[in-house]
Amino acid sequence: MSYVFGVDVGGTSVKIGLFTGEGELLEKWSIPTNTDNEGAAILPDIAASVQNKIDEKGLKESEILGVGMGLPGPVDENGIIRKAVNLQWKDNFNVEERLKNCFKGDIKVKAGNDANVAALGEAWMGAGKGYKNIVMVTLGTGIGGGVIINGKIVTGTAGAAGEIGHIYVGEDTAEPCNCGNKGCLEQFASATGMVRLLKEELENNPDEKTELRDKPLNAKELWDAVKNNDPLAIRVAKRFGKYLGTGLSVVAGVLNPEIIIIGGGVSMTGDVILPYITEHFKTHVFHASADTKFVRATLGNDGGIYGAAALLI
Amino acid sequence: MSYVFGVDVGGTSVKIGLFTGEGELLEKWSIPTNTDNEGAAILPDIAASVQNKIDEKGLKESEILGVGMGLPGPVDENGIIRKAVNLQWKDNFNVEERLKNCFKGDIKVKAGNDANVAALGEAWMGAGKGYKNIVMVTLGTGIGGGVIINGKIVTGTAGAAGEIGHIYVGEDTAEPCNCGNKGCLEQFASATGMVRLLKEELENNPDEKTELRDKPLNAKELWDAVKNNDPLAIRVAKRFGKYLGTGLSVVAGVLNPEIIIIGGGVSMTGDVILPYITEHFKTHVFHASADTKFVRATLGNDGGIYGAAALLI
Repeated sequence: MSYVFGVDVGGTSVKIGLFTGEGELLEKWSIPTNTDNEGAAILPDIAASVQNKIDEKGLKESEILGVGMGLPGPVDENGIIRKAVNLQWKDNFNVEERLKNCFKGDIKVKAGNDANVAALGEAWMGAGKGYKNIVMVTLGTGIGGGVIINGKIVTGTAGAAGEIGHIYVGEDTAEPCNCGNKGCLEQFASATGMVRLLKEELENNPDEKTELRDKPLNAKELWDAVKNNDPLAIRVAKRFGKYLGTGLSVVAGVLNPEIIIIGGGVSMTGDVILPYITEHFKTHVFHASADTKFVRATLGNDGGIYGAAALLI
Repeated sequence: MSYVFGVDVGGTSVKIGLFTGEGELLEKWSIPTNTDNEGAAILPDIAASVQNKIDEKGLKESEILGVGMGLPGPVDENGIIRKAVNLQWKDNFNVEERLKNCFKGDIKVKAGNDANVAALGEAWMGAGKGYKNIVMVTLGTGIGGGVIINGKIVTGTAGAAGEIGHIYVGEDTAEPCNCGNKGCLEQFASATGMVRLLKEELENNPDEKTELRDKPLNAKELWDAVKNNDPLAIRVAKRFGKYLGTGLSVVAGVLNPEIIIIGGGVSMTGDVILPYITEHFKTHVFHASADTKFVRATLGNDGGIYGAAALLI
């Protein structure tokens, strides 16, 4: 029997999963992320938690394929993390080496960017199982992206491949994106972006009847209203779909993937979002990529730990 | 000593190069492309020409690494070509197998799309030597593109990765592109696209003095006028740069390459074209890819035979 640990490091908690080498999730738990002191305790805390589980289960070192880790920042091919604002990590350092050194035994460690790793998780055991060329976009507060070619994550030179949230949509925004640029896809098609579009529609049409007028402004309410055929909500959904579908048509023109996976909180709202995306995708994509499949992610919040584990497979 | 043949198949002629396995071009020649009878003679003609050279030089089969071939159409990972309009090839078939069967001996054959193969040529012995992650765009009558990740061509599911000429620039054109869509990058930034933009400027400004008024309308004259600080030409160059620079910023956001190589006839006009591209690239690209290098291709028209040979390396 072989075992592998998948660790998904977030700004408030660290999720950890114990998997078999065949991809069965045996157990999952989480620990808080301690960002005090420039996040110095994060890696030792992870190692201690993993080591506890190894001891508890009586796993032998020879049975452990290793520990994979998804991190909220760009990680290059050598395991160097450049910046992880949410973890208070400031200096470049080799995160694989540092976690490895926290273990008594000889445990293999691999790390990757969380959005890339989530794509690998879906490729391994989720919506992308059986496909070799995959693009995944994660629609949350921001937009994350991951590219899998021939079954492997495309990392990029600085660990910044798959930054689909920050491709320019051809239209400047008044406010800059978190990245500093104006007109990033994330400003239109993330949960935050949708709410921005929704606010605009509400303000520009103060007299239009809509079930969204006195509700909390969030993506769930928006898509519930779309399901109820609310015209204002549908207009927002169409704008969302225009930006995301057109952006993904460009990504598909460059990569010609088999499948595009839509993940993140917004995707959990259901298949209702897909036609809004594919309409514009099909209009603009190069004909040879017109058959690209669109599906929603299936691993939900566990995508990160699956993908982290898959780094060792 | 090891030898490898690189074959660049075009609609009017087939260029063939004999290389050492180390990448030295020993000899190059060309034969006409016989498109009669649905291009049935093309592969036998290539095999005969290569076989003649093998016999003439007295090369031993054991010394020959193989024959690589760049083709004007999408070729998938299994060597299946979908369509090659310029060669009058209509049905899907395995082009690697068919060329291989034309040889008496046991010669290894690999094939790829010509734009992808040109990128591999630059990666092997041209402007991309020493880099692992490369994007190349070839500015000619159309725009071709090639993506190299970890030293290997990204082929895509249907052999259609790297179709950078057909990414949507966010603005519809009156006339459709050759691919059927409207608003493809190729319609703005290829040699043909530049001439279209130039015509528009001339028609919209009939009284403006410009050295381009009574000259043949082509990319060379345009860039010569840019070098002479002709204001109308500079406006066209700026529009060209906006579309190409912005489009490449999206490609870099997805792939985070080390280097972007600009090839094709237009690139031979000199480094004058680069700042027009990089200005918009830097405005819109994700910060982690801001240092992407821009260079012009160095292999010129030989890029195709170099890259075809490199398929066997």
